[in-house]
Amino acid sequence: MSTTYRTSLGTSDLHSIRLMGRDLSGELMGEVPFGDLAFWMVAMRRPTPGESRLFNAVLVALADHGFTPTVIAARMTLASAPESIQGAMSAGLLGGGSRFLGVTEDAARFLAEGLAGAGADGPRADADYDALARELLAARTGDRRPIPGLGHPVHKDGDPRTPVIYRIAEEEKVLGPHLALLAAVGRVHPEILGRTLPINGAGVCGAALADLGFPPLIARGFALVARAAGVLAHIAEEMRDPIGLQLYQAVDRNAEYVDPTKE
Amino acid sequence: MSTTYRTSLGTSDLHSIRLMGRDLSGELMGEVPFGDLAFWMVAMRRPTPGESRLFNAVLVALADHGFTPTVIAARMTLASAPESIQGAMSAGLLGGGSRFLGVTEDAARFLAEGLAGAGADGPRADADYDALARELLAARTGDRRPIPGLGHPVHKDGDPRTPVIYRIAEEEKVLGPHLALLAAVGRVHPEILGRTLPINGAGVCGAALADLGFPPLIARGFALVARAAGVLAHIAEEMRDPIGLQLYQAVDRNAEYVDPTKE
Amino acid sequence: MSTTYRTSLGTSDLHSIRLMGRDLSGELMGEVPFGDLAFWMVAMRRPTPGESRLFNAVLVALADHGFTPTVIAARMTLASAPESIQGAMSAGLLGGGSRFLGVTEDAARFLAEGLAGAGADGPRADADYDALARELLAARTGDRRPIPGLGHPVHKDGDPRTPVIYRIAEEEKVLGPHLALLAAVGRVHPEILGRTLPINGAGVCGAALADLGFPPLIARGFALVARAAGVLAHIAEEMRDPIGLQLYQAVDRNAEYVDPTKE
Amino acid sequence: MSTTYRTSLGTSDLHSIRLMGRDLSGELMGEVPFGDLAFWMVAMRRPTPGESRLFNAVLVALADHGFTPTVIAARMTLASAPESIQGAMSAGLLGGGSRFLGVTEDAARFLAEGLAGAGADGPRADADYDALARELLAARTGDRRPIPGLGHPVHKDGDPRTPVIYRIAEEEKVLGPHLALLAAVGRVHPEILGRTLPINGAGVCGAALADLGFPPLIARGFALVARAAGVLAHIAEEMRDPIGLQLYQAVDRNAEYVDPTKE
Repeated sequence: MSTTYRTSLGTSDLHSIRLMGRDLSGELMGEVPFGDLAFWMVAMRRPTPGESRLFNAVLVALADHGFTPTVIAARMTLASAPESIQGAMSAGLLGGGSRFLGVTEDAARFLAEGLAGAGADGPRADADYDALARELLAARTGDRRPIPGLGHPVHKDGDPRTPVIYRIAEEEKVLGPHLALLAAVGRVHPEILGRTLPINGAGVCGAALADLGFPPLIARGFALVARAAGVLAHIAEEMRDPIGLQLYQAVDRNAEYVDPTKE
Repeated sequence: MSTTYRTSLGTSDLHSIRLMGRDLSGELMGEVPFGDLAFWMVAMRRPTPGESRLFNAVLVALADHGFTPTVIAARMTLASAPESIQGAMSAGLLGGGSRFLGVTEDAARFLAEGLAGAGADGPRADADYDALARELLAARTGDRRPIPGLGHPVHKDGDPRTPVIYRIAEEEKVLGPHLALLAAVGRVHPEILGRTLPINGAGVCGAALADLGFPPLIARGFALVARAAGVLAHIAEEMRDPIGLQLYQAVDRNAEYVDPTKE
Repeated sequence: MSTTYRTSLGTSDLHSIRLMGRDLSGELMGEVPFGDLAFWMVAMRRPTPGESRLFNAVLVALADHGFTPTVIAARMTLASAPESIQGAMSAGLLGGGSRFLGVTEDAARFLAEGLAGAGADGPRADADYDALARELLAARTGDRRPIPGLGHPVHKDGDPRTPVIYRIAEEEKVLGPHLALLAAVGRVHPEILGRTLPINGAGVCGAALADLGFPPLIARGFALVARAAGVLAHIAEEMRDPIGLQLYQAVDRNAEYVDPTKE
Repeated sequence: MSTTYRTSLGTSDLHSIRLMGRDLSGELMGEVPFGDLAFWMVAMRRPTPGESRLFNAVLVALADHGFTPTVIAARMTLASAPESIQGAMSAGLLGGGSRFLGVTEDAARFLAEGLAGAGADGPRADADYDALARELLAARTGDRRPIPGLGHPVHKDGDPRTPVIYRIAEEEKVLGPHLALLAAVGRVHPEILGRTLPINGAGVCGAALADLGFPPLIARGFALVARAAGVLAHIAEEMRDPIGLQLYQAVDRNAEYVDPTKE
């Protein structure tokens, strides 16, 4: 086994701190916005201005969605252990799994696998994307799983985040094959599924992250980084204007004992 | 008890998603960089351009410091449960307590309490800050705890992040009383402690966050948000170029059984 | 630095697995109940039958207390990431801090520090304990912090767990100085505080763990081990008879937007 | 939506605390060992003495396996945030995913699905189990995934835990179809896979938990409860005889910077 541990991230010595081989204090602090640094540290290359705008829009889109289960978990944890803010933040991220933030990853994976299956000579024109989308959707017929990126419990007539991501990607000329394929899924699915669903924000964010070059699991990772800021915002709000005790009592005082032997 | 749950963060209805009362897709996505949104969601006000530059520099300074214990915890967790990226990220944040990221909070608290003790008619000129710093340091004489913000195990001659934060705060005219008091601590401590220590990066970041208006616990919270990006970068690197198995075996194969009855 | 890593816990080779130097399969499995093993692994000695009975009673007392905030956090996390049971369990432990399970640790620490302050020639008879308890309580007069181990939000007339722990400790002849001092606190506090409070279950469990030889932080650790079983029970119930969606909607649908500029 | 929250676990009022409808202080504390309570709270029935012996043996078998990655994560987290024992314990559980503790769940699931596929008229004699095992293994030929429950990186000639679980299950007359099917897999796999692998301890524990009536995800949950005790033991050892700093420095001082542009 090697006796050294390889990394391209942070290193330091007596006089300097380096990050990705750059001088942290001379080249990065004050020069690179935090969002761009997050992209850079994962991709190992700095985003172009256009990529940065799309990437920041994705993080902004994913940062908060109100009283989600993960936010409730974070607030309950803070109410119980107010001195351990790292515990409350972690509790707020641990729900970032298959049902909530997982859509971002699932959409990225569904689209990436679809494109990989299409081979090196993949789709170029809208018609090619439509054909590929039809093929992918038909392959899931009979399968009861939802199509990643389609449908939303609230925004049934259209998720307002979706057109904005497409507009920014076009303006910045960074719209790639994953977003193109997801748009095609949006166009052709009514003829195959027999009903019209919106392209959801989590899915379009996953497609955008895939077009920016990130693997599916990392797409979920960025959703978690964005959500870390949102969870901190809820923690700060819980400190200013708490709901923790109110919520705990709403549950505890309405507990109904169910005799397990009589069920 | 109230039957509603108050929040100023995310809300949504059929056609819109709002965040802090703003239209997420129309006013925030593509318009506000992620770092600024993180500030805004916690402070409930948008940072000025100068505040934004200082704030982003702080997050960049705190994002990664190489193979820290928290990064090792995240990589070990990923090696053990690679499908649960939220678990690895949480393991990477859970060490953000008193020894590592806690310095940011401790420095913010030490300075804020010092300034609060000085009353409404607090220090104005450098000489006032020096006098207050002498008083605060003298009050801790005999006390063996380290002074928050002073000293660094590696950068014994000066932490390279410190002058950059002060330079940016001056350039942007956002240098406030916490940074001023910490600078005074840096000036006067040799005469009281009998040795010269550097002002460390974690402490100066805590002071900057306090000057930006954030309470001490939130200063640690932002250190965790910054670190979330750094932990994701290590997770991405662990996927590309893993050290997990190597590290696990370095420990496991070198385990030495110690008979507890013979100690 | 040493190149070996010392441990008295698990080790293994091709043919055997050892734990604390014992043969796991030959000496422990089927021979030692799990509760006793938990004691043994931490204390590095097997409990006597009397210690085992008291220790198991403490773990049983701490295992579940219904819909606490930590249980709500675990259920919300499971609802959000049902495939990651380790995430839901961790979310259920992360609230084990100062407000909820922390009482166990705080009581153990308060009593241990009180006894340590009394010196080698510590209390022997009830009257000595009463004198020491009066001294400790008087030292906290004016201090607004609660006395660890006194008071309960629900069981105002007496916590039903308290007499049972004392009875078992007496029956098994393992009642030591921490339980004795806590009993004295229970006797003398009305004359000093001016009101009568019950000795609570978390506090008496902390005293019992201290009498069994465990340091205060480990007392909280055993509360977490006990709670791990309780959290798993809630997770299993959430799988059979879920409340997650109901609770999430009760919060989300009753969200009230508060304009932060108008507060 | 219902306005009550259903539970069969903990409830309390002014004078009593109840758990599963039983009086906690009168019927459970001092009467029921902790391991049995853990079984009871999840299964909603008390184990028989034979079930209890097998169940406790399983928890003992799973409690610790030395310096695993999850233990390293817990120790690194404690070194970084020593005041937050709940954070260190959570970090030690978060790796309980697909690679390490997941085997317990995977084996339970593989066996349960195999038995379910065999229908109501399932196997009775050893020959029936062998036939079913051959069928299940043949269905995975060509599939490169490991067979859950077979193989071990260290105990290549046989996992010492395996025969003990079978012996206890036989002695207590609680050996059910999951253990029987796993034994058949152990008998027939050489003829199908072309090599002989041991039945591993994690797999046999998963089969035993399935025979005790628990679903596969809960089998992993009990592995986490057992591991919670093991992690606490490592935390206690880290407090007495720390390796954290040594391990951190072994990694940090041997970091090798890799230029990402030259790879």
